[in-house]
Amino acid sequence: MSISSIFAIHLNDVARMRWRDVWIFQRVYSFSLFSSSTTDKLAFNTVDNGYLKLDRVRIPRANMAMKFSTVARDGTYSRADGAKRELSYFTMLQMRFHMVHGSAKTLSKAATIAVRYSAIRLQGLSATAPHGEVRVLDYQSQQHRVLPRVAESFAIFATSHVYNAFCTQATAMVDTSPDSIDATSLAMAHAISCALKVAASELCTRGIEICRRACGGHGYLQSSGLPELGGFAAQFVTAEGENYVISQQTTRTLLKLVGAYRMGVALPPSLEIFHALDGPLPKLSATDYEALFRYRFLSLLHQFDATAAAYPSPDVAIQTNLIESHHLALCYGKYVLVHEFAAAVESLSRATKPIAVALFELFCVTQLQEDLGDFMALVQLPTSARASLHARLTHLLDAVRPHAVALVDAFDHSDVSLNSTLGRADGNVYDALMQSSLLYASDAVPGFTEYLQPLRRLHASSRL
Amino acid sequence: MSISSIFAIHLNDVARMRWRDVWIFQRVYSFSLFSSSTTDKLAFNTVDNGYLKLDRVRIPRANMAMKFSTVARDGTYSRADGAKRELSYFTMLQMRFHMVHGSAKTLSKAATIAVRYSAIRLQGLSATAPHGEVRVLDYQSQQHRVLPRVAESFAIFATSHVYNAFCTQATAMVDTSPDSIDATSLAMAHAISCALKVAASELCTRGIEICRRACGGHGYLQSSGLPELGGFAAQFVTAEGENYVISQQTTRTLLKLVGAYRMGVALPPSLEIFHALDGPLPKLSATDYEALFRYRFLSLLHQFDATAAAYPSPDVAIQTNLIESHHLALCYGKYVLVHEFAAAVESLSRATKPIAVALFELFCVTQLQEDLGDFMALVQLPTSARASLHARLTHLLDAVRPHAVALVDAFDHSDVSLNSTLGRADGNVYDALMQSSLLYASDAVPGFTEYLQPLRRLHASSRL
Repeated sequence: MSISSIFAIHLNDVARMRWRDVWIFQRVYSFSLFSSSTTDKLAFNTVDNGYLKLDRVRIPRANMAMKFSTVARDGTYSRADGAKRELSYFTMLQMRFHMVHGSAKTLSKAATIAVRYSAIRLQGLSATAPHGEVRVLDYQSQQHRVLPRVAESFAIFATSHVYNAFCTQATAMVDTSPDSIDATSLAMAHAISCALKVAASELCTRGIEICRRACGGHGYLQSSGLPELGGFAAQFVTAEGENYVISQQTTRTLLKLVGAYRMGVALPPSLEIFHALDGPLPKLSATDYEALFRYRFLSLLHQFDATAAAYPSPDVAIQTNLIESHHLALCYGKYVLVHEFAAAVESLSRATKPIAVALFELFCVTQLQEDLGDFMALVQLPTSARASLHARLTHLLDAVRPHAVALVDAFDHSDVSLNSTLGRADGNVYDALMQSSLLYASDAVPGFTEYLQPLRRLHASSRL
Repeated sequence: MSISSIFAIHLNDVARMRWRDVWIFQRVYSFSLFSSSTTDKLAFNTVDNGYLKLDRVRIPRANMAMKFSTVARDGTYSRADGAKRELSYFTMLQMRFHMVHGSAKTLSKAATIAVRYSAIRLQGLSATAPHGEVRVLDYQSQQHRVLPRVAESFAIFATSHVYNAFCTQATAMVDTSPDSIDATSLAMAHAISCALKVAASELCTRGIEICRRACGGHGYLQSSGLPELGGFAAQFVTAEGENYVISQQTTRTLLKLVGAYRMGVALPPSLEIFHALDGPLPKLSATDYEALFRYRFLSLLHQFDATAAAYPSPDVAIQTNLIESHHLALCYGKYVLVHEFAAAVESLSRATKPIAVALFELFCVTQLQEDLGDFMALVQLPTSARASLHARLTHLLDAVRPHAVALVDAFDHSDVSLNSTLGRADGNVYDALMQSSLLYASDAVPGFTEYLQPLRRLHASSRL
């Protein structure tokens, strides 16, 4: 917090302001009424969030970001020529794709820590060879907790690369000639950014916590790095549009695009899947991964579209059916993840493809298991799929296990960025734990230096 | 941490020690090799966990807890007459039931905070009456996030009351005449304590995080009380037997009891459900709540028992099928929750029964939805149940909503114990947030008092 810190504020519901506008000004300007930091947060405490109230404050015109709307010297408010309404949301769109990438990054850090620790941690005896302790990563349940998180990290990274590239390209187009972006593509990008942020942040936060628990009591230590990662990632769920709020925007856009499709408007390539919206369902088996997620999404969309017809407006339909709306958006996000992960795997060389295919399958199988009722009820997956998916799962865990450490090494997180006693690349977990424990003992406990340490020295060689 | 702090340590794998034994001694005794606190934890930092290494240390005989095993003056180690092996685990059994109760308590605190905040928080406009802001608890999605947590709290409380009573009774019996407890009942209590601890701690920790998120950005503030609650409850998953470890003990005991049942041994009343283990499946509908959970559990148990027959021992079967073993134990825990919640609701007066029935149904419906694939594949629930369960869910949310605040008031948590700006009984959330924010600003930011506060005073009346 410093007096030169700047605030970028969104003003809406203000007379004569029809869009959200951005103003930049020194914090000192706000003293006229009230400004303050919030209290401590779950994490992310290096960023200072604050409250701000303004009451009849004049802000110089020069402090308004005037690319898409302007206030003239005489106070006239006007929209810039040719500026699309969607462009005013462009920063939020960028931020959401940024959070999708951030979800992959933080989840892959947690997966790195959990895999490395599980690969060196010995605990419990083997039921078949009772004299050796077992590496915890060799337990099926530990693999089931940790390895799908590796697969999810790759799925989100693969998708994030595609949409970050789109975003960079779109940003350049907005800068040079805003007219060259059509409104449908922008609306679509908006819907995808919301759906992906919802799906990625849910996978990320859940996955980090699973990794933390998979490290047992040591995962409860701050020095494992996992509590901080979890606290940091928790913001992805809430910020830049709380997940249950922005999922409504995905539904709204999808309904609009379905309407346009039915009226014969040409669709962007990513929406050609709409052609199967009203058609008969093909017979799908448990290994038709992409098709299963596509038809599950289309079935939900078809259903919601039919439901919405009974309401006076899409907004009323959504607000009355928020549970289904959120589920639709989440399942759209999951379909996009499966679709982009499949495409990324397809593009790989012969050397890396087999393990990537196994990770892709692991991602799909665990996701299918999670929503099994959906797939049985909506796309007629037979109930026998429950057993076949489980068999496939255990096969995949066996296949991925030998590559687990190499796969997390491939995320290329340095020890500094992991900041974890458990996730060190050299595997010296116990030395690191002991070091961090000793640091704590001599610095942080009242009375340690004065009373306990001398006693400890006194008894250092005693044999009571 | 003080030199008079005591350690209760579990020694195993030590020559001549055939059980786990408990010794109590002053920390000073351990200085001969090494002892230290661990570093900061996710939460629960008021309790000092430590490392301890002993190397050729003599501990006085008087410091051994000798109820069930003794060491004579000449060093002879022996088991007390008539002491059952199961009794040595009795403390852990008590601790697990204690954690089940703790899960209900912490989850109900989070639910109280989220319901109270959602009941006063206004956000967004109604699609049908666009001029009034909406109480967030009136959004269907917010109800879906928060109200099942209220139902889960009641489910765990109801079950916990039954088993705490059992535990108190059993403790008295152990104290007076250990012989009066039969080994089957003790083994069964052990299996149930593990299964319930797994199910309750999973519901609790997940529920607290859902409540935290349901409070939006304010739930990210430490002053909401929710981050601390979540961090505290996280230990229930890991301590007194990590959930994936103790679930194996439930499976092991269940397999043993199934074996005994098949050999004609008389079963305790709680296991009379085994009579349906091999019989034909009745036709069940989506509202046969208790039967659905009972038959799902029995189906999994039947399946695991059949699988286990192919292995040299139950231990090998469990270690080779850890994913299914964990799922079996979790589903047993969920069945016990449904069973005890149903019994508790049945015992209520006419005045309180209707709302309790609604909560019971809400618990069952959301649990059925979560594992829908299980119920379709294992107990032949028709796929049409997906739609009927959703319809029932929205009906129940509507029915519970008007009672939500009264229901969380019934948990009777004081403002002091909630320690939350958002969960205050008087609903003055914004005053509380502002107070906590002002406290922070004047105390905690370096340079605030010296530099920022004088500037703020200087500009207090400026109109730039």
